[in-house]
Amino acid sequence: MDKLNIIKVGGKVVEDPAALEQFLQDFAKISGHKLLVHGGGTLATELAKQLGIENKITEGRRITDAETLKIVTMVYGGLINKNIVACLQAKNINALGLTGADLNLIRSDKRPVKEIDYGYVGDVKEVQGDLLAELLKLGIVPVLAPITHDKNGQLLNTNADTIAAETAKALAEYFDVHLIYCFEKKGVLMDPEDDNSVISEIDANLFKEYVEQGIIREGMIPKLQNAFEAIHCGVKDVTITKAQDILLGKGTRIML
Amino acid sequence: MDKLNIIKVGGKVVEDPAALEQFLQDFAKISGHKLLVHGGGTLATELAKQLGIENKITEGRRITDAETLKIVTMVYGGLINKNIVACLQAKNINALGLTGADLNLIRSDKRPVKEIDYGYVGDVKEVQGDLLAELLKLGIVPVLAPITHDKNGQLLNTNADTIAAETAKALAEYFDVHLIYCFEKKGVLMDPEDDNSVISEIDANLFKEYVEQGIIREGMIPKLQNAFEAIHCGVKDVTITKAQDILLGKGTRIML
Repeated sequence: MDKLNIIKVGGKVVEDPAALEQFLQDFAKISGHKLLVHGGGTLATELAKQLGIENKITEGRRITDAETLKIVTMVYGGLINKNIVACLQAKNINALGLTGADLNLIRSDKRPVKEIDYGYVGDVKEVQGDLLAELLKLGIVPVLAPITHDKNGQLLNTNADTIAAETAKALAEYFDVHLIYCFEKKGVLMDPEDDNSVISEIDANLFKEYVEQGIIREGMIPKLQNAFEAIHCGVKDVTITKAQDILLGKGTRIML
Repeated sequence: MDKLNIIKVGGKVVEDPAALEQFLQDFAKISGHKLLVHGGGTLATELAKQLGIENKITEGRRITDAETLKIVTMVYGGLINKNIVACLQAKNINALGLTGADLNLIRSDKRPVKEIDYGYVGDVKEVQGDLLAELLKLGIVPVLAPITHDKNGQLLNTNADTIAAETAKALAEYFDVHLIYCFEKKGVLMDPEDDNSVISEIDANLFKEYVEQGIIREGMIPKLQNAFEAIHCGVKDVTITKAQDILLGKGTRIML
């Protein structure tokens, strides 16, 4: 099977035009099939602030009300997505910007209301891997915005990490999928204060051990759980690294 | 050759969710290959106002500065485009939202600065008809936002009427193309005060005559000139009609 690199980028790289340009320059150099999933950093929050729309948070969780969904659709689906596409096209990468609504690629369910009503947030139910595989085999580079739909006309704000993981799982049938999460640090760190203490490889046993020892904690736990789930569903490996290092093969590699 | 309907919609239909829903319901019923080009109505201007960005007009012409381009990309490329796509997907139409940057479908040149600097406005140079034809033959319904790019990383605001005409011309090689412009009135009127005075057909001779008589004037002249140019380039016919009438075959038909 052909190799496919799925790369998720977000945060400061997406917010800062110079950092984004540098990242896309590196991304363009990756050979073979590739797919980019982008988040939106704080750009949506900034636009909401400018428009005087309150950033709704309940019990620490961000809520996507109707106004926020509009902003997310504008910023993620329009501004960021189309600028990335134009930038990649200038580098002769045949980029195609997509949300989950386009071609019905990613269908999700509006998150059920329990203790918290998250609003217009989608939990991914189905990724059309066959269609994405066809696009990839035509040499197209899909650029996915973190927006899905419920197939009943409703767009839904969806976590970009989840989109990357679900897309990787759906494409594992067609490609040798390598999933790469770019984030602020060089990888999973032994010592959060020391950016050079990157753990180079983590398997399921080591993960369990590190969680017990409190080395891996908080937000990193669900991130790695998602990574292991992707691997259990056929993804070859998951790498967590700094956006600046995607060509270097550095970072933390997660495998069975 | 297969028939292809290219429909351009804008103005109030796009601004008003109920009108848009009705229009898309009708659009979904059109059989065979189809492609939708949408404008943005006043939604971009409204967002600019909310953000305190001045609507720049020089000698009656709207100027697209960097801030306005951002808004246009958000509203046309994101909000409107993705909502149309989600709405069509709910009606089992396999819609794919696109700008000219996606797949390098429409390349344009930034309009040269002469008496007026229009800013980030693009004049269409090349439409990749072959690629669009392939998508259409797969049963995909492209939904084009009025944004193109220069292939050097710059997005450009582009007139939706022009995108519709240029796309129609590029696809005339592959399909029997029927181009339909939806607008506020029932068609080209003999008497602008009487909405029932629709001229049912106009050919080149009649057009010349009506212009001389002052029946066709102002903004309608370039609209019809574009229509005739499309027909000269192989488009079968161009219809100007009310969005509410697209299934009825009413309006003004322009032909050789």
